[in-house]
Amino acid sequence: MKVAIQGEPGSFSEQAALNLLPQARIDCCPSFREVFAHLADRVVDRALIPIENTLAGSVTENYDLLREQNAFILAETQLRIEHNLIIHPESSPKQIRRVLSHPVALQQCRTFLRKHPDWEVVPFYDTAGSVKAIMANGWKDAAGIASRRAADVYHARILQEGIEDNKKNYTRFFLLGRTETRSKQADKVSLALTVRNQPGALFKCLSVFALRDLNLTRIESRPVPGRPWEYCFYIDFMGNPQQAPTRNALRHLEEITDSVKILGVYPSAQSEESRRSGKGESKKRANPKLDVSNFFD
Amino acid sequence: MKVAIQGEPGSFSEQAALNLLPQARIDCCPSFREVFAHLADRVVDRALIPIENTLAGSVTENYDLLREQNAFILAETQLRIEHNLIIHPESSPKQIRRVLSHPVALQQCRTFLRKHPDWEVVPFYDTAGSVKAIMANGWKDAAGIASRRAADVYHARILQEGIEDNKKNYTRFFLLGRTETRSKQADKVSLALTVRNQPGALFKCLSVFALRDLNLTRIESRPVPGRPWEYCFYIDFMGNPQQAPTRNALRHLEEITDSVKILGVYPSAQSEESRRSGKGESKKRANPKLDVSNFFD
Repeated sequence: MKVAIQGEPGSFSEQAALNLLPQARIDCCPSFREVFAHLADRVVDRALIPIENTLAGSVTENYDLLREQNAFILAETQLRIEHNLIIHPESSPKQIRRVLSHPVALQQCRTFLRKHPDWEVVPFYDTAGSVKAIMANGWKDAAGIASRRAADVYHARILQEGIEDNKKNYTRFFLLGRTETRSKQADKVSLALTVRNQPGALFKCLSVFALRDLNLTRIESRPVPGRPWEYCFYIDFMGNPQQAPTRNALRHLEEITDSVKILGVYPSAQSEESRRSGKGESKKRANPKLDVSNFFD
Repeated sequence: MKVAIQGEPGSFSEQAALNLLPQARIDCCPSFREVFAHLADRVVDRALIPIENTLAGSVTENYDLLREQNAFILAETQLRIEHNLIIHPESSPKQIRRVLSHPVALQQCRTFLRKHPDWEVVPFYDTAGSVKAIMANGWKDAAGIASRRAADVYHARILQEGIEDNKKNYTRFFLLGRTETRSKQADKVSLALTVRNQPGALFKCLSVFALRDLNLTRIESRPVPGRPWEYCFYIDFMGNPQQAPTRNALRHLEEITDSVKILGVYPSAQSEESRRSGKGESKKRANPKLDVSNFFD
């Protein structure tokens, strides 16, 4: 199975893809738009995209692409993001003049970087890509900020581990496919909706879930292009359309919205983790040993 | 009166500042964080920040800074964003090899840029700053994407007007002060809240407004740093705490939230525009000729 990601080998996206599909071959794309295009054009079987980070927030471009393109969420996974200062093995701390990484990674290491005001901070297109460039060009005056895996992949040297400001740094990723798959194991639904621009419209939408005790885990809003000051809402909630409350909620939602698009019905990362470790809810499940990598074939 | 903005003379922020305060002297800062710092440190009297664009969405850094810092919203204004291709007066279309602008502006002109695949697209820190750099360095091989005003300010030449993909491109800005001002003319409230992580929590918050027929105009969520998968919600609604429904809604909100922070009580851009042009709701107002520039002193 081939999976498209945005970024280079050693990136957090690659790690997340291998967490869900350990045997996958990775297709590295320069942009998220290209990741979606490779999925649509059957260059790959799956795509894996980051959707939100617990410090930086939503990856808004991917929210927009999910609504715009025909891709469905098959699974989610969460990754602890640890940043490391990585250099060429033949370099030394004294030689560093500039630090390269993705802008979000640079921002997440601000406290560390402030201690080195003499280093030039250079935004780069990818965390792992910064290490790749340092090794490919033999740069001794540059350090990259990336994952431990990036250092391994490019045979670079970790100078300092865990340089991020905040350790509670997680990214949530979606695994995408071309066709919708709804399993019995699914316990989470993601959807995008637009409402008529009238008082109480969003309140009515949320009542659909609240009235049925369905737990909302996320709401995000994005502008609707060409309709200034109107918004599309992205909602995640715990449920499965195979059960009546979720089915009724979705039907109720169609009554009161302009449009509803189901983005995916999938097992939540929490249930997935507890299922794998054999703890928690998974004990109640029919087939706790089912492997997620086969599950979506 | 001195107003801090992020960006250069000729930027959209400068235009927005002068729309609200025509006599203001502008203090140009390299980052939004510095804009807030200059306001707190009394380097300036006011700050002006963009908060959302109808195509790109929220300026999330400014949402975070509003919650973190002690600044209050005194007014809002909206600006139609028009992008122009601008060159050195001694250059010509044939000489262009690269196009510089803020990443959001580059993204908003994607259709135009696709027609010129031979041009290198270079992200720059500011729209007007790209024109400034072209003129300061005498670059004949570069074009900037910026406002008409930027061309005027730096005596550069507009090669092509209105190159944006979508004409329905507006940015909403906030004027900030150090102390909260609540006028009778105010008809909009902005606040930030956090809720206990329990089912129906957000629904209960929205019910506070819906039960009192108070119109919500915007909801935005941002992660709470250090509390993974918990969110802070930013809400704008039409109301004034001098009226009972708004006062009661705010009291009700305090009952059911973890924290509520009022970010500002101010006249909405719509009411402001209709007041200035002498149309619409303003006719009902006590003092329709009140000037916004004196209003916040």
